[in-house]
Amino acid sequence: MRYSFANDYCLGADVKILKALVEENFMQKAGYSFDVSSMALRAKVQELVGDPKASVFLITGGTMCNIVAISHLLRPFEAVMTCDSGHIVDHEAASIEAHGHKVIATKGYDGKIDLCALEREYARYKDCHMTKPRLVFLSQSTELGTTYTKAELKAICKWCHERDLFVYMDGARLANALALADCDLSLKDIYELVDAFYIGGTKNGLLFGEVLVIKDEALAKDLYYLLKQNGALLAKGFVMSEQFLAYFKDDHYLKLAHHANVMADGLRKAFLKAGLELYGTSKTNQVFIKVDPLLKDYLAREYEFSQWGKDGDQEIVRFVTSWATPKEVIEDFAKYLEAYHE
Amino acid sequence: MRYSFANDYCLGADVKILKALVEENFMQKAGYSFDVSSMALRAKVQELVGDPKASVFLITGGTMCNIVAISHLLRPFEAVMTCDSGHIVDHEAASIEAHGHKVIATKGYDGKIDLCALEREYARYKDCHMTKPRLVFLSQSTELGTTYTKAELKAICKWCHERDLFVYMDGARLANALALADCDLSLKDIYELVDAFYIGGTKNGLLFGEVLVIKDEALAKDLYYLLKQNGALLAKGFVMSEQFLAYFKDDHYLKLAHHANVMADGLRKAFLKAGLELYGTSKTNQVFIKVDPLLKDYLAREYEFSQWGKDGDQEIVRFVTSWATPKEVIEDFAKYLEAYHE
Amino acid sequence: MRYSFANDYCLGADVKILKALVEENFMQKAGYSFDVSSMALRAKVQELVGDPKASVFLITGGTMCNIVAISHLLRPFEAVMTCDSGHIVDHEAASIEAHGHKVIATKGYDGKIDLCALEREYARYKDCHMTKPRLVFLSQSTELGTTYTKAELKAICKWCHERDLFVYMDGARLANALALADCDLSLKDIYELVDAFYIGGTKNGLLFGEVLVIKDEALAKDLYYLLKQNGALLAKGFVMSEQFLAYFKDDHYLKLAHHANVMADGLRKAFLKAGLELYGTSKTNQVFIKVDPLLKDYLAREYEFSQWGKDGDQEIVRFVTSWATPKEVIEDFAKYLEAYHE
Amino acid sequence: MRYSFANDYCLGADVKILKALVEENFMQKAGYSFDVSSMALRAKVQELVGDPKASVFLITGGTMCNIVAISHLLRPFEAVMTCDSGHIVDHEAASIEAHGHKVIATKGYDGKIDLCALEREYARYKDCHMTKPRLVFLSQSTELGTTYTKAELKAICKWCHERDLFVYMDGARLANALALADCDLSLKDIYELVDAFYIGGTKNGLLFGEVLVIKDEALAKDLYYLLKQNGALLAKGFVMSEQFLAYFKDDHYLKLAHHANVMADGLRKAFLKAGLELYGTSKTNQVFIKVDPLLKDYLAREYEFSQWGKDGDQEIVRFVTSWATPKEVIEDFAKYLEAYHE
Repeated sequence: MRYSFANDYCLGADVKILKALVEENFMQKAGYSFDVSSMALRAKVQELVGDPKASVFLITGGTMCNIVAISHLLRPFEAVMTCDSGHIVDHEAASIEAHGHKVIATKGYDGKIDLCALEREYARYKDCHMTKPRLVFLSQSTELGTTYTKAELKAICKWCHERDLFVYMDGARLANALALADCDLSLKDIYELVDAFYIGGTKNGLLFGEVLVIKDEALAKDLYYLLKQNGALLAKGFVMSEQFLAYFKDDHYLKLAHHANVMADGLRKAFLKAGLELYGTSKTNQVFIKVDPLLKDYLAREYEFSQWGKDGDQEIVRFVTSWATPKEVIEDFAKYLEAYHE
Repeated sequence: MRYSFANDYCLGADVKILKALVEENFMQKAGYSFDVSSMALRAKVQELVGDPKASVFLITGGTMCNIVAISHLLRPFEAVMTCDSGHIVDHEAASIEAHGHKVIATKGYDGKIDLCALEREYARYKDCHMTKPRLVFLSQSTELGTTYTKAELKAICKWCHERDLFVYMDGARLANALALADCDLSLKDIYELVDAFYIGGTKNGLLFGEVLVIKDEALAKDLYYLLKQNGALLAKGFVMSEQFLAYFKDDHYLKLAHHANVMADGLRKAFLKAGLELYGTSKTNQVFIKVDPLLKDYLAREYEFSQWGKDGDQEIVRFVTSWATPKEVIEDFAKYLEAYHE
Repeated sequence: MRYSFANDYCLGADVKILKALVEENFMQKAGYSFDVSSMALRAKVQELVGDPKASVFLITGGTMCNIVAISHLLRPFEAVMTCDSGHIVDHEAASIEAHGHKVIATKGYDGKIDLCALEREYARYKDCHMTKPRLVFLSQSTELGTTYTKAELKAICKWCHERDLFVYMDGARLANALALADCDLSLKDIYELVDAFYIGGTKNGLLFGEVLVIKDEALAKDLYYLLKQNGALLAKGFVMSEQFLAYFKDDHYLKLAHHANVMADGLRKAFLKAGLELYGTSKTNQVFIKVDPLLKDYLAREYEFSQWGKDGDQEIVRFVTSWATPKEVIEDFAKYLEAYHE
Repeated sequence: MRYSFANDYCLGADVKILKALVEENFMQKAGYSFDVSSMALRAKVQELVGDPKASVFLITGGTMCNIVAISHLLRPFEAVMTCDSGHIVDHEAASIEAHGHKVIATKGYDGKIDLCALEREYARYKDCHMTKPRLVFLSQSTELGTTYTKAELKAICKWCHERDLFVYMDGARLANALALADCDLSLKDIYELVDAFYIGGTKNGLLFGEVLVIKDEALAKDLYYLLKQNGALLAKGFVMSEQFLAYFKDDHYLKLAHHANVMADGLRKAFLKAGLELYGTSKTNQVFIKVDPLLKDYLAREYEFSQWGKDGDQEIVRFVTSWATPKEVIEDFAKYLEAYHE
């Protein structure tokens, strides 16, 4: 069978995380994330973001985080702004529109929001015949594997808050950003800057689970009702908490993400060595690369990866590494790629 | 007070229509459009579209028509496609999204759908991670005053129906299209081609009211429930029917629209004579014109009109005539415009 | 043709109201209720409720008022409480549920809310596994023609506000309550007590139209967006305002409602004289009466009225009078009824 | 710490199920339940229900199953009927209403639908001013631990299908019903009778997960879109499938449920021996018992259980056993209860 670089959610859980789950398996706990593990997890996240009053929720997946957070923050006639590569634009089955809100996508660059484009578009919304932009959605790391710097995030948040717009961060691959050596944004910084965000678990070694953080206690008021109403309140919430406690213990989540990033660096190195051109500037665990059809077929014989788009004649494909990608697989891949050019 | 060319809904009703209303005022009738006038109106519309089985509904306004028809035709995860100037894109407060459906806008030309652009975009929707396009929305006459020919509409409908997409026509200014001398599309043609459309009354001489027509009896099943549920089932439905009976009698609606078109021709002639450049190719009752700031100010001293957009340095403004625009007003306007250049 | 007592919306408009509309017909006005008539109407309503800061909106019908007001006041997981005869329970096609909110109906008496029953039910809602009651809906006059006294309304509002519940009043037939000689509730009282209410026009002499009043400027924030988004912002808002200005001028609305009430008294008198038993204690324009099948058939030969329910063997039927019911019709009816017993 | 009889979802997973998960942990699989385990699971369920064309979906929890299935089957104005103890009535935060549908609850008996009460209520829905009942919701085993016989289910389904109503079964505790010695309903029977149902995993030994089964391929069309749009399409769907394969293997799910039922029988026996009165006729893993306040306090010292309701002076409390309840715990409980009366 071919090795898959198709995504970072193709295996079960990291060993430490799975072990935590197994060890706690026969402990009786309360339902709906009101148990001891969930309480400990909340305290841990509050410590990580530096605010004992941060509101913390356990949610099974990223699409659900986005639905719940956005439904919670917006009134029916309010809209979300984001850039064209934003995950909610084309990859979540129009779930935001299904929950009543227009998603306004402006041209981004390298997977990130272009504040000028955003401002130009924002200026068009003037009266009740149009929708009312109220929240800016961004991803860290982005859908193209790039990351916002502290200065960039600050500028966006300042611009938003001056206009009474919320900032919400999709953190499906947040750990991959945080684990970068040159990342100048900590969880505390993010918590201080944005209004709500989630820390992804599914794509970084959990069986499933994300942690939604809402900044303000008042802002999070009654969110449990919305969770329950959307079928998002898992009966055995502790199954997520137990995993997340192991995830956050001793910065294990950063180590997992670091590994994924390093493996991706290995891929990038191999591609560059083979004279190929990277697409975009990702330094995290997603690798975008331009290939011609012949090479694509050659790679596809041994590896799974995904079609991303086109750039003129060339196709852009995506390789994703994860916490679980073995070093040997990367070495083998490099050899296999090298063999093509011989 | 300045004369207003701001829109075609700034007066009450045409005299004949108002008279019909007044004459029927003291006749006891059944509620919710199940009365004799509404039945007569349905028969009249069925005659006009050439099908005694056409389903006909009375609705107070155009936004409500669009909401009800689209909500009725689509399942929750299905989406609407249209061109960027489509009224539902930016002028109805994201009501389609509020009712759960994504609106996908592709680049149009001269207010009309560009089938190539539509096709390119359509091809992107492939699986359940994206929304599912299911209906194409177009306006006749368009938001830029232009009109689809029979050949154009046929091509769009053929393309749509081959892909199991509904075609829905917003006819807020349908009469203005039908009243053009060179219009080769009759109500019967439209009924045959599209799946649903509405014939606007509000912008062509009614106090208010639109007639929604759904092609297929089966397709219209249970639509009354949706009307009631959306607060769109007027208690005194006969107030709309009585007006519409006078509207359709002896093609009065076409005469009203013809007058509006002719008055707009008068404006266009005056603008061209003054050496100004029209924006787009409208031949109906909306006139788009490029003006410089000085001229704009000069015109605004005596007339109301609306800001439309920009084309480089020049502003595009819109003048709208109606069934009620007096010939003398157009003559005066022409003189006033002429005076500017002297 | 039989004379209809089926409802109070079976004719056009009162003469004074229609005249106002006709007189203003050719005045150019701004769209979407931002015109001079609508501004004057807002000032008039503000005067009537005694607060120059009251927020006033023009809406085409009662179901739409209820949808918009309730959607505006509640968050997605919040619910409405009312009594079992409340109009939203069974007569508006589950429009409140369609807009996302549970309607909790408790047993009422004589068409009114029983605060004990409400309290008992309210006590059951405790956590996020259930919905969260947030608004109490009541009608004045009620669906059974009865009315709340000032003391009753005060008690309900006090109870609600102590629990952070909004009070919303459906005033489809509010004028009929206000016009009663023994009514101790003025528009000012109502405005002071409840959070939002509407003053019905459709059932008391307008072609169509209701006035929604929201108490607090902050509470009404952005409601225009919701109106537009729900297709409830009529292009020619002035058509409603012009009618309402005549409606409120010199308390004309109270005179219209008084007439309807007096005509209903005539019916009640006739029924009692004929030895029939009234159902409930309505003193407004709805008359509920118990009849046996033979009498029902006899009445149905000459008059339209509606089936209401059953009380053991006997049927309860409803007769509705209006601003337009001629005195002679009531006299003839009394004779016709008398003839039955001879 | 007290032993908890509060619910059947207070531990992790059954050992065999957990083992299956651990064993498969490092196998690369496709996302979103399109992997080999999910395909095998679908085949297994199709075998169990006796139809290779049954549509099978993996969903994280019961509330989500109910939301997705009901949203999928109903049009916006259609309603659900059930009995007053139905889980969607009071225990799922009005999620069905939040998704647009009225829930009509009629008086049931012993946790089950009373077809006479249902019929009486159904007869009231006649026109578009009310909602349109379209689906009947029932639970097996019920919220009171009781079960429908084949004859009962047949009668309900026949009545429903004659009226074009869907039947949907909530099977959160379906295995507990199937595992009863005198249960005459197999999975095949259920599949044949109802239109859609789910087989619960969460309450019978899975970490989480339910299997939604839709009878007809056509009926299930496009349901994946709805799953994705509601945030219900888990990235690692295989985490559920792997558990479910172990669950269904060699009827393990029936053995787990049988154990829970037998432990509940132990409790019932102990209660009866102590002279207490059972509430209702549950033979599955939920035990409802009438207790006086003193006994309740005594039991609460050592055990957790839940408050259910009142019956006059006495309180009704609920004890729930599970696949994991140790026999010794039941024996100890019996002794503890006995000690109270000495």
